[in-house]
Amino acid sequence: MARDPKYDILFEPVKIGPKTLRNRFYQVPHCIGAGSEKPGFQAYHRGIKAEGGWAACCTEYCSISPESDDTMRVSARIWDEGDVQNLSAMCDRLHQFGALAGIELWYGGPHAPCMETRDTPRGPSQIASEFEANIYPRYMDKDDIKLVQQYYVDAALRAREAGFDIIYVYGAHSYLPLQFLSPWANKRTDEYGGSFENRARFWKESLEKVREAVGDDCAIASRFAVDTLYGSSGVELEKDGIRFVEYVDHLVDLWDLTVGDIAEWGQNAGPSRFFEENHEKPYTGRIKPGNHTDKPVVGVGRIVSPDTMVAIIQSGQFDIIGAARPSIADPFLPKKIEEGRLDDIRECIGCNQCISRWEIGGPPMVCTQNATAGEEYRRGWHPERFHKAANADKGVLVVGAGPAGMEAAMILGKREMSAVHLVEAGPEIGGNVNWVSTLGHSDGKENIFRGTARGLGDWKRVVNYRQIQLDKLKNVEVHTNSRLTAEAVREYGAEIVIVATGCHWATDGLNSVTHDTIPGVDTLTNDWQLTPEDVALGRKPVGHRVLILDNEAYFMGVTLAQKLAGEGHEVHLLTQRASVGQYMDYTLEAPMMHRELHRLHVDMHTDTHIERVDPGVVTAYNVWDPSHKERFEVDTVVLCSARVSDDELYRELKADQEALQANGVESLYLIGDAAAPRMIVDCIFDGHRLAREIDSPNPAVPLPFIRERRLWSTSTHKEFDVQLLAKSDMAPMA
Amino acid sequence: MARDPKYDILFEPVKIGPKTLRNRFYQVPHCIGAGSEKPGFQAYHRGIKAEGGWAACCTEYCSISPESDDTMRVSARIWDEGDVQNLSAMCDRLHQFGALAGIELWYGGPHAPCMETRDTPRGPSQIASEFEANIYPRYMDKDDIKLVQQYYVDAALRAREAGFDIIYVYGAHSYLPLQFLSPWANKRTDEYGGSFENRARFWKESLEKVREAVGDDCAIASRFAVDTLYGSSGVELEKDGIRFVEYVDHLVDLWDLTVGDIAEWGQNAGPSRFFEENHEKPYTGRIKPGNHTDKPVVGVGRIVSPDTMVAIIQSGQFDIIGAARPSIADPFLPKKIEEGRLDDIRECIGCNQCISRWEIGGPPMVCTQNATAGEEYRRGWHPERFHKAANADKGVLVVGAGPAGMEAAMILGKREMSAVHLVEAGPEIGGNVNWVSTLGHSDGKENIFRGTARGLGDWKRVVNYRQIQLDKLKNVEVHTNSRLTAEAVREYGAEIVIVATGCHWATDGLNSVTHDTIPGVDTLTNDWQLTPEDVALGRKPVGHRVLILDNEAYFMGVTLAQKLAGEGHEVHLLTQRASVGQYMDYTLEAPMMHRELHRLHVDMHTDTHIERVDPGVVTAYNVWDPSHKERFEVDTVVLCSARVSDDELYRELKADQEALQANGVESLYLIGDAAAPRMIVDCIFDGHRLAREIDSPNPAVPLPFIRERRLWSTSTHKEFDVQLLAKSDMAPMA
Repeated sequence: MARDPKYDILFEPVKIGPKTLRNRFYQVPHCIGAGSEKPGFQAYHRGIKAEGGWAACCTEYCSISPESDDTMRVSARIWDEGDVQNLSAMCDRLHQFGALAGIELWYGGPHAPCMETRDTPRGPSQIASEFEANIYPRYMDKDDIKLVQQYYVDAALRAREAGFDIIYVYGAHSYLPLQFLSPWANKRTDEYGGSFENRARFWKESLEKVREAVGDDCAIASRFAVDTLYGSSGVELEKDGIRFVEYVDHLVDLWDLTVGDIAEWGQNAGPSRFFEENHEKPYTGRIKPGNHTDKPVVGVGRIVSPDTMVAIIQSGQFDIIGAARPSIADPFLPKKIEEGRLDDIRECIGCNQCISRWEIGGPPMVCTQNATAGEEYRRGWHPERFHKAANADKGVLVVGAGPAGMEAAMILGKREMSAVHLVEAGPEIGGNVNWVSTLGHSDGKENIFRGTARGLGDWKRVVNYRQIQLDKLKNVEVHTNSRLTAEAVREYGAEIVIVATGCHWATDGLNSVTHDTIPGVDTLTNDWQLTPEDVALGRKPVGHRVLILDNEAYFMGVTLAQKLAGEGHEVHLLTQRASVGQYMDYTLEAPMMHRELHRLHVDMHTDTHIERVDPGVVTAYNVWDPSHKERFEVDTVVLCSARVSDDELYRELKADQEALQANGVESLYLIGDAAAPRMIVDCIFDGHRLAREIDSPNPAVPLPFIRERRLWSTSTHKEFDVQLLAKSDMAPMA
Repeated sequence: MARDPKYDILFEPVKIGPKTLRNRFYQVPHCIGAGSEKPGFQAYHRGIKAEGGWAACCTEYCSISPESDDTMRVSARIWDEGDVQNLSAMCDRLHQFGALAGIELWYGGPHAPCMETRDTPRGPSQIASEFEANIYPRYMDKDDIKLVQQYYVDAALRAREAGFDIIYVYGAHSYLPLQFLSPWANKRTDEYGGSFENRARFWKESLEKVREAVGDDCAIASRFAVDTLYGSSGVELEKDGIRFVEYVDHLVDLWDLTVGDIAEWGQNAGPSRFFEENHEKPYTGRIKPGNHTDKPVVGVGRIVSPDTMVAIIQSGQFDIIGAARPSIADPFLPKKIEEGRLDDIRECIGCNQCISRWEIGGPPMVCTQNATAGEEYRRGWHPERFHKAANADKGVLVVGAGPAGMEAAMILGKREMSAVHLVEAGPEIGGNVNWVSTLGHSDGKENIFRGTARGLGDWKRVVNYRQIQLDKLKNVEVHTNSRLTAEAVREYGAEIVIVATGCHWATDGLNSVTHDTIPGVDTLTNDWQLTPEDVALGRKPVGHRVLILDNEAYFMGVTLAQKLAGEGHEVHLLTQRASVGQYMDYTLEAPMMHRELHRLHVDMHTDTHIERVDPGVVTAYNVWDPSHKERFEVDTVVLCSARVSDDELYRELKADQEALQANGVESLYLIGDAAAPRMIVDCIFDGHRLAREIDSPNPAVPLPFIRERRLWSTSTHKEFDVQLLAKSDMAPMA
């Protein structure tokens, strides 16, 4: 199919300085966990997007000096020739597919804890980071300012050597150039502080120096938060935001506009739960239409709809459609629009699991929608290309159509298995996602500060995408409303059986705090005790006074509290952890969630666990002082205490190997929540992995992947000897 | 000097299975952040201890399968030949210095989140980890049990190939073998659950299989928590603890005994604040004297006193003195005892900064006492050997004798600078450590659960060690009670001037929450408003009702709360963070601190910041709902809001370059808290680093260090092509 002409505008080239973007699709800088240390991961992850049609792809934030070391988190680095060598692999890969390569030069100031280098970051004024634990910068005198500006220049020269086309002087997310610009971080009284011109001086000079060094060969970009959302204590759009763009417009070839800071950067990388598509428009949409710049503008906002993209271009909001998360969820998004295959787009669901890994520090990125994200190099997984399985002649039965089952069936279908049957006991495919995605919207009476509780509706895209793909696959049949017994499975006629029967919430209060059940809890016999499913599916009435136990500490407890409080219930929310919904700290949902729960007057008790439940009364205790008891008189108790795999079918099948053999079942696998309850992202991965490796020697155990690490060898000794030993006091290796 | 004969017993060899320890000093497994990914770090860090006299050094926990992946934390791994190659460097290095090499084979079960491998851990029963966020194991059927036991065997065979002498089947800290043994994690009803023999079966069989595979060539060790400290729901010493030792005693060559679990492993790696030397004796000291084993026993307890060591051996508690932290603080501890140089021992202060980096995940280990820990390979730093500086003819003036200044002066002395003067304004050297180390002890009325609030007295060792070393260095002079003006510095006669004048707590409420001061705060003019120094040094009286603001979120706020509540004051403790003293989560001090503060009835308000302070009244607000105000009527306000560098002297000196030159001052440096307030560990490092590199081209900027990373090259492409491309769908690199 050809593309719809209404999308032609998206495929026009755009000139940025000395370079030209082949179309308007642009992967803005975003973290993946590769940095400069895993060059294959970096090259192949960015490269797959170039192959998928993006006109440019950028590194994540790339440190210009060991003074800006974000360990435990993973940034790129361009400190030395080794980094040049490693990042050049990314440039080569992008150029191979016709895309430009961008690098985001980064100096973090106090937001860089330097836990690997043990160096001291410098900053405009000596105030500790609001984001890190006790990291104070060294006050920058004028020599320090020159030194750091030279770091930018040196890094830009190395970046050009590596092959980069676009070089950022990165100031958004409250990093150094913005720290100088913003009165929030800049309390100086010299010519680098005070007036607008003084505060803008550092950034302006840095741009001038970088442009002077590489501006003939590379496009110069700047990422800028047009409003830091601190009110008058920071950068405000109408004051310094617009003014700064105008002030240095002649020095940049491309503006990459954002809002917010790093301590709460969910205002920029907005989770779908609280932010709709193109949510930054009230800020980033003011620059171009207001004629404040003559340069191309790119911006983001989890933009996945081609129609939204067209509207953005036509309205003059942006010239270029930026994407981080949508490009992770679907690296082939541009190509699919170009080829008129809109229904094949895997839309980002805005769950921010990708971001969670950066926040946790260290682990490679994951994506709920795209199991191949991060696996392009180390496992050689292509998101759109699949080779026929060596055992494609086998028939496959997948029991259970939640995330793991849907994904396994879809990928097995794409791998041309002769017949794949996805059989679901319920009326529709999707598993827990179906009811989870109905939750999370506000009572609608009032918006929370900075965001609106839209709910988890976008998570349903996990089901929608797979439904469409499954419908297209002629070798896959989906059967719903069909609960299979072990006997029915055995006699189904499939050589390969994959059990993906999901999990349920514990009905007895089983929990990880005590590794035991809770005395007095049995939701099966007590109609005033509810599991999360009971609440979400309206299985039982909920009384006025509700106590919710949140042992999960991700989204379930807080979401039910939000729902019930929004409906007018009096809600107590208890967790054994230091804060409610703690994993949401990593998905950037936490700040909005905290505000929402406060707005709804949810009564929160942290460091607290339930001792016992009696009719109408819950007795709880503080985990640090079990003698400190609290008594709650309530009508309803909701227990988000633990999840339990629904693996009876698998166990029964596995127990009778003879019967399996007699029926021609050659292999039996257990995946997803049925193997171990986990997040959706992990269920999808589990199903995908099995399908990718269904023809490996032992599909039950994952194949090894390439681990990008240094390997010790004689030449390693030598490096040490040459570099250091001559001047060190260390004895040589024998 | 020769060693004192009373210590002869420590240097007797000990036979463990087919191997012999040359003496009784043994570095038990502990994390450093090297794993198998940084082979040089691993080899040289363990190797320096072998050089320092330890009879054996072990890896950190070493994963036997990708199913046991602890990312974001760094464990060693022995999954493939690459790991064998990398770990063999460590074995070679240890053997070079006559020490044995030990490896701790580890399978974490649900305590391994598998964020790099994306694999699913298996466990005895399906209960989520109490330590991780929502990690559930896959229930192990008997095939799974055999599979994991084979992982142990395969790993042991690879370990032997790498050159290891001692192979652990690791079960302490609640990892898999202990999960099977303990009813806390094992709820099985088959022959691997229920009775003691059933619960012990997995571990016993694993030991048998590993012994069968490598027992003739390697000593088999087991690390075992003789009491998990859960009472009857876990392993209790008198029940399963002693019984298990007796039950499998014939299968081990060495017992490595501990207590506790992983969720609160500060019970084992006890911070000095709450645990004294050899604190596990009531548990680990019961096995050998009770004749429950015929095998050698090693154990730990931050044992640094040679006399304690002798008493431990003579009492029969242990045969071998185990050490993790003391071996990090002083890799040459055995050699110093052997050579009769007891006063040269750098004693571990028990601050657990080393551990904090593992807890944070990813960063390399650091040590407050030993700045060279972790720097042996990448910077080539030897803890005991120093070469003469190239510019040793220069005279050095160090202004300020806190941690950074003391360390710089000491190392410059050891580098044979012609003259080093360490000049301190106060009456003694040590800086802030002097008053900080007087804090933290309990009111003595009552012990907290699991630990005793001993206080920070052991931190004073930072000063004591350096005082002794400085006294010995003939080229270093220490002058106290001498406050130098800029003019006096210039005219001092030193070519090199190092300013290390420390920092102070803000007197105006400056803080990282608002990046501003707090209205109404001025501790200089209000006698009821106190800084931490005011409280610790008794500068001002403290009223009955006290409010403490803790913006630091490490030890200061909670320590002052503990002190004042212990003295009978009514204390409110406010922090903007989700819990008080949050960094103590990483140093393992948090659980005991929480219990202590609860015991003392400290009124804690988290997520809370001060809006303004008026006479007798503090107005605070919730950071998630600023409209939610709280009013505290108090007599005294204590402000741990921020620290501020005392850098006036440096700024004044720097501003007048002509005057410096005129007086022959060639270089001027700023280090420690005076450059940027930081933790003691970082101040020591900063001073050490400058002294190590005082003769580099630009000592102000650290020299590059070896970064152990993969470098991309043509052969890297090839590896990808060979390993994966043939069977993947990915296009080759151009």
